[in-house]
Amino acid sequence: MSVGVVGLGLIGGSLARLLAARGVDVVATDASPASREAARAAGLVVADDVAGAVAGRELVFLAVPLRAMRAVAAEVARSIEADATVTDVGSVKGPVRAAVADAGLGGRYVGAHPMAGTELSGFESSDVGLLDGVPWAVTIDAETDPDRLATVLGLVTGPLAGTAAVLTDDCHDEVAALVSHVPHVVATQLLNAVAGAPVRDVALGLAAGSFRDGTRVAFTDPARTEAMVTENAMWVASALRKVVRDLEAVLEMLEANGPAHEFFHAADAVRATWVPGRRPVTGGDVEQVPLEGDWPAALLDRCTSGSVVVRVTADEAELQVHR
Amino acid sequence: MSVGVVGLGLIGGSLARLLAARGVDVVATDASPASREAARAAGLVVADDVAGAVAGRELVFLAVPLRAMRAVAAEVARSIEADATVTDVGSVKGPVRAAVADAGLGGRYVGAHPMAGTELSGFESSDVGLLDGVPWAVTIDAETDPDRLATVLGLVTGPLAGTAAVLTDDCHDEVAALVSHVPHVVATQLLNAVAGAPVRDVALGLAAGSFRDGTRVAFTDPARTEAMVTENAMWVASALRKVVRDLEAVLEMLEANGPAHEFFHAADAVRATWVPGRRPVTGGDVEQVPLEGDWPAALLDRCTSGSVVVRVTADEAELQVHR
Repeated sequence: MSVGVVGLGLIGGSLARLLAARGVDVVATDASPASREAARAAGLVVADDVAGAVAGRELVFLAVPLRAMRAVAAEVARSIEADATVTDVGSVKGPVRAAVADAGLGGRYVGAHPMAGTELSGFESSDVGLLDGVPWAVTIDAETDPDRLATVLGLVTGPLAGTAAVLTDDCHDEVAALVSHVPHVVATQLLNAVAGAPVRDVALGLAAGSFRDGTRVAFTDPARTEAMVTENAMWVASALRKVVRDLEAVLEMLEANGPAHEFFHAADAVRATWVPGRRPVTGGDVEQVPLEGDWPAALLDRCTSGSVVVRVTADEAELQVHR
Repeated sequence: MSVGVVGLGLIGGSLARLLAARGVDVVATDASPASREAARAAGLVVADDVAGAVAGRELVFLAVPLRAMRAVAAEVARSIEADATVTDVGSVKGPVRAAVADAGLGGRYVGAHPMAGTELSGFESSDVGLLDGVPWAVTIDAETDPDRLATVLGLVTGPLAGTAAVLTDDCHDEVAALVSHVPHVVATQLLNAVAGAPVRDVALGLAAGSFRDGTRVAFTDPARTEAMVTENAMWVASALRKVVRDLEAVLEMLEANGPAHEFFHAADAVRATWVPGRRPVTGGDVEQVPLEGDWPAALLDRCTSGSVVVRVTADEAELQVHR
C-alpha cells in the first residue's frame, strides 16, 4: 500500500510518522517550507508540492485545516491516480465529504477521523505515538465503495493498530459535537469568564485541577477551534441548546433552594461502568461482517450501538467486528 | 503548635499526613471507625472522638463534609480550649463561617481552603503530597483577630509550604464558583448529555482527551459536588447565568452562520501569559505588610489583585506578600 499525506500539522505529521515507523510507503507534503524541512529532518519522505505527494499513491489522506479542505481537494484532484482512494483526518465529516465531492472525488472518498489530539498545533508538536492504537470514526454514505472502505479500514486496524466505528457523516458529526466540539466551546467559555472577571488575577492564582482540566482544550489555537465548531455548526448548536437548557434548570433549582439531586446523579450508570479513555466493554465477542449484500446497514447498526471494526480479512472481503 | 484535624477524608487525611510528615504535633479523628483505623495504620495519631482530637489543641481544622459542618462545629465547641483557633478546609467560606458562628466560635474563626483535590474521596485516597505547597485561600471578616490569622498563615506558609491569598468570604466564594464549582457543574452536564444521548455507546467509545479532561471532575462523588454547589448557590447561579448567556450567544452566531471570532479569542491575553497550575508571575517583589492599623484593607487590596502571603515573621507581627 502506498500512501500520500497532504498536510503535516499535529495530526498529519503524527500520521506520517506512525505510517513510516510501521514500514508503510508514505510520501507527505505541506504548504509550509519550514514544516517540510522539519519533516525531512525527522526522516520522512517529503514532496515539495501536492502533486508530488499524490502522484502514484493508492491512498491519499487530506490532513489540512478544515478551512483549506476545499482548495486542497481541488488541487489533489488534478494529480491523483485514476483509481486512488481519498480519505482525511478532519474533525467534521459532512462538510469534508461535500468539499471532496465538489472537487469531483466523491465516488472515491471514505471519511476518517482519528479520535486523538492535543491542545498544540504544527509538525513540531506531532508525535509518532499520538495516533498509535487510537479509536477512529470512519464514515460512509450510500455511494461508498466497499473496496475503498476495506482499504481505509485495513490501514487503520493494521499498521495504525486502531479500531474503527463505521458511521454516517451525521452520526459522526453529532457524536463529535457531544464528545469534542461542545467540550471545546464550554472550556473556552470557562476561560473567557475568568479572563473577563474583576477577580481574574486572584482566580488564576487559585485555580487548581478542576479549572486546569476544564479549560485544557481552550488553550488550543482558537482559530482551529473556531473552524472546527463553525464547520459543525448545526450539531454543535443543537448540543449547546441542551447545555443551555440543562444549566438553566440547575441555576433555577439553585436560586429556589430546590433539590439538584437528579442533575448530579443523572450519569451514575456511566460513572459505575465507564472508564475514561477505555471503550465500554460489552462482552468481547468478535463476529464477521461480509462486505456484501446490505453491508452498510449491517455495519452501521453494529457500530452505532458501540461495536468497532478490529480487523479486515486478507482478501478485504470481510470485517471482524468487536462488540 | 499543636493541631487537631476533625475529618479524615481526602482533604483532612492529606492534611493530617502532611502535618505529621513535617513534624507538627497533630491529632486527628473521623466519625468512621474504618477511617480511624486506616489512619492509625498509616502512622497518624488518631483520637476516638471529636473531644479527643480537640482537647489541648491550639488550632483545630474542621475537615468534614459541608453538610456535616454545622453539627461538627457544635461538637467542637463543647471540647475546644478557651483560646484555641478554629479553621477549616471547606470549599465555600460564607456558609462555613455562619455555621461556626452559630456554634459560638465566630470570634476565633479564620476561614481556609486549600486549592487542590482529586475526583476521589475518603482517607484511602488521601496523600501526603496532595496539599504540599499548594495555594490556599484564607478568609477574614471585620472581626478577624490578627493573631489568629497569623497562626493560620504561619502554618500554611511554613510546614505546609503553601501560599495564601487573604480574601473576604464573598470574594473567595465568587472565585471558587468561577474556577471550581461551575467547572464541576459544566463537567457534570457534559457527562449527562452523553449518558442520555441515543448515540451514547458510540460516543463513549470515541471519546478522547477533550471529553476525558472536560468531564474528569464529573467523576467526583456526585453527592459531594452537589453539596459544594448548593452551599455556594448564589455565586454559582450568578456564574451559571453568564455561562448560559455566553453559550446562547455562540449558538445564535452558529445558527446565523455569523462570526464567532470574538468568543474564541476573548481570552487570548490569558493564553499568552498564563500557564495552568502556575501563579501569574508579576515581578517577584516581596513587600512587608504589618498586622496593625488597617491591615485588613492592606491585605485584601493586595490579594484581590493577585498577591499572596508567602511568609509570616517569627513574632507573627508582619506578613511577607509576594506580588
